[in-house]
Amino acid sequence: MADALIGAGVPEEDAKVCAEVLIAADKRGLDTHGIQRLKLIYIDRIRNGILNPKTNFEIVRETPTTAVVDGHNGMGHVIAKRCMQMAIDKAKKNGLGMVVCRNSTHFGIAGYYTTMAAEQGLIGMCGTNARPSVAPTNCVEPMLGTNPLVFAFPSDEEFPFSLDCATSAVQRGKIEMYHRNGKKLPEGWVLDNEGHCVTDTATALKGFVEGTACCLPIGGAGEELAGYKGYGFAAIVEILSSCLSAANFMSAVSGVRDGKKVPIELGHFFLAVDVEAFRPLDEFKKQVGDICRALRKGKKAPGAERIWTPGEKEYVAYCERKEKGVYIPDGLKPEMEFLRKEYNLKYEFPWDKKQ
Amino acid sequence: MADALIGAGVPEEDAKVCAEVLIAADKRGLDTHGIQRLKLIYIDRIRNGILNPKTNFEIVRETPTTAVVDGHNGMGHVIAKRCMQMAIDKAKKNGLGMVVCRNSTHFGIAGYYTTMAAEQGLIGMCGTNARPSVAPTNCVEPMLGTNPLVFAFPSDEEFPFSLDCATSAVQRGKIEMYHRNGKKLPEGWVLDNEGHCVTDTATALKGFVEGTACCLPIGGAGEELAGYKGYGFAAIVEILSSCLSAANFMSAVSGVRDGKKVPIELGHFFLAVDVEAFRPLDEFKKQVGDICRALRKGKKAPGAERIWTPGEKEYVAYCERKEKGVYIPDGLKPEMEFLRKEYNLKYEFPWDKKQ
Repeated sequence: MADALIGAGVPEEDAKVCAEVLIAADKRGLDTHGIQRLKLIYIDRIRNGILNPKTNFEIVRETPTTAVVDGHNGMGHVIAKRCMQMAIDKAKKNGLGMVVCRNSTHFGIAGYYTTMAAEQGLIGMCGTNARPSVAPTNCVEPMLGTNPLVFAFPSDEEFPFSLDCATSAVQRGKIEMYHRNGKKLPEGWVLDNEGHCVTDTATALKGFVEGTACCLPIGGAGEELAGYKGYGFAAIVEILSSCLSAANFMSAVSGVRDGKKVPIELGHFFLAVDVEAFRPLDEFKKQVGDICRALRKGKKAPGAERIWTPGEKEYVAYCERKEKGVYIPDGLKPEMEFLRKEYNLKYEFPWDKKQ
Repeated sequence: MADALIGAGVPEEDAKVCAEVLIAADKRGLDTHGIQRLKLIYIDRIRNGILNPKTNFEIVRETPTTAVVDGHNGMGHVIAKRCMQMAIDKAKKNGLGMVVCRNSTHFGIAGYYTTMAAEQGLIGMCGTNARPSVAPTNCVEPMLGTNPLVFAFPSDEEFPFSLDCATSAVQRGKIEMYHRNGKKLPEGWVLDNEGHCVTDTATALKGFVEGTACCLPIGGAGEELAGYKGYGFAAIVEILSSCLSAANFMSAVSGVRDGKKVPIELGHFFLAVDVEAFRPLDEFKKQVGDICRALRKGKKAPGAERIWTPGEKEYVAYCERKEKGVYIPDGLKPEMEFLRKEYNLKYEFPWDKKQ
């Protein structure tokens, strides 16, 4: 991935950062956010001139605890990683650190950045806005992004507590997966412009492109199952991501203006809290672990094998994939072969021999 | 309310704070968190010796941006208001401020405290743990509290953006309201210990007392409608509320030990972010307002009258109630009469003449 990005014009050091974040997604089982997006979301956009491979990371304003960054439409992973490390460094010195940025781009899995904080003994919180795809409660058009609201905490277990999730009930990547597997969507995931539930994956995916379908927030449509709370969290992420940094928001990050593809310049926010400002880190870690262990010991629902804690599934995937490698769906192979050829890379793929 | 609390032994200044927070709930239409709880949650607990009317607010540890407070089982509203104001003052000086506390008690509506920040030009975030009543995904026993995760932002509109909500699909107060109105509960709110959906309100309320029923997180049971995200947010609030301050958590805040009622000593957290550290406040407020106005203009679902933004319903209730007063359900009147008599108060109630 790094070599393909270098081929596309990303400086070596930055390409390594992008590849590291993408591979982290694949290692953790978050297939929708790893190598499957390398060409579509990053390299194609660089080639189309709507993503800047050379990142100009400009600190616009700074205090001992805060900073505002302009990413100038550079590589999102590079911008986000540097922002989070700034927040962490500020928190280590001053207890708390918060860095926001504008004109950034798709940064991969949000959990990568919060986990950076957790691995350094801090609490991490972050989020980003994204292309409008989610309908507010009582609305039938896409207005907010899938806007992840993400936290990680250091723990005394093998892996940190890490909730890395969109504030929508589902995101596009999962619907693409259902599409590839020929499965119908459950009710409560996608609405069309008339407020009807969409269960056909092709209709949903076409509707996303045309703006005639929208995802629902956590809790689904209407108020009965608290969809207004999911919508509220999505709006909070839109505000935290854009209003402190003067970033674009809502329809301005749709990537289309006057019918033409334009840069998708996003806003993000990153918060770090130094545990040691409050309490010895070991004690904090133990209590986080105690909470997770207590949760897992709850009485299981009939048919449920286990009660998971946030970050645990990703850790299980990581352990499995460390041994067995990462899953490459057949549909991805031509993209990887294209990039190998295009950038004159010398790799052998495991499936080369079979062909 | 203040006079009744003074009668129960709360010092005058503190009683005014408690009453102010409770009345704020009634004014905003959050009936479940106002005067309806005065006797049951506060005065009865003081009289039972499990809530300390005289608040000893002890700052255990402090830095320019952070503090840890011990509330020594005093009045939650008093503790929480002081903690949030400390966080605000720290943020005004240093950009960010975070205060956590242990051994606090029920503090009323969380949104009161975040709104304090918004009214002073800051972003407010807060939360608290609570008696276990919510089942994690795949679990059928109450393990986490309704654990609100609450944010407020200043805006250029008549009222701040304010999301004040539990991380459960529903909380006990709403079920009590359904009970009084003789309504069935929708599926996806309450489970029994065997994993069956409970729609009968009496069964649900009895089950809460006996530990045989549990509320579901935002998104409901299982993973399909993203209940694991609601569960994840509830767990995050449990950690933020208890692990930095060394507060009690989960079953330790059930209020029962060895079959005896004991103090419900909770943990809370309060975060304030000074907007001016990032951007001129007026610009921030305008962008928050722009986001809210854009959301309201979305295409409405068939049958939906309007698209609300967080805090708007509360503001509408506030405007109505400013004219018409607050709703007192019949069931509450004997409680109010009891307190009047008990504490020798001279009030006339509007319904006195009818009797």
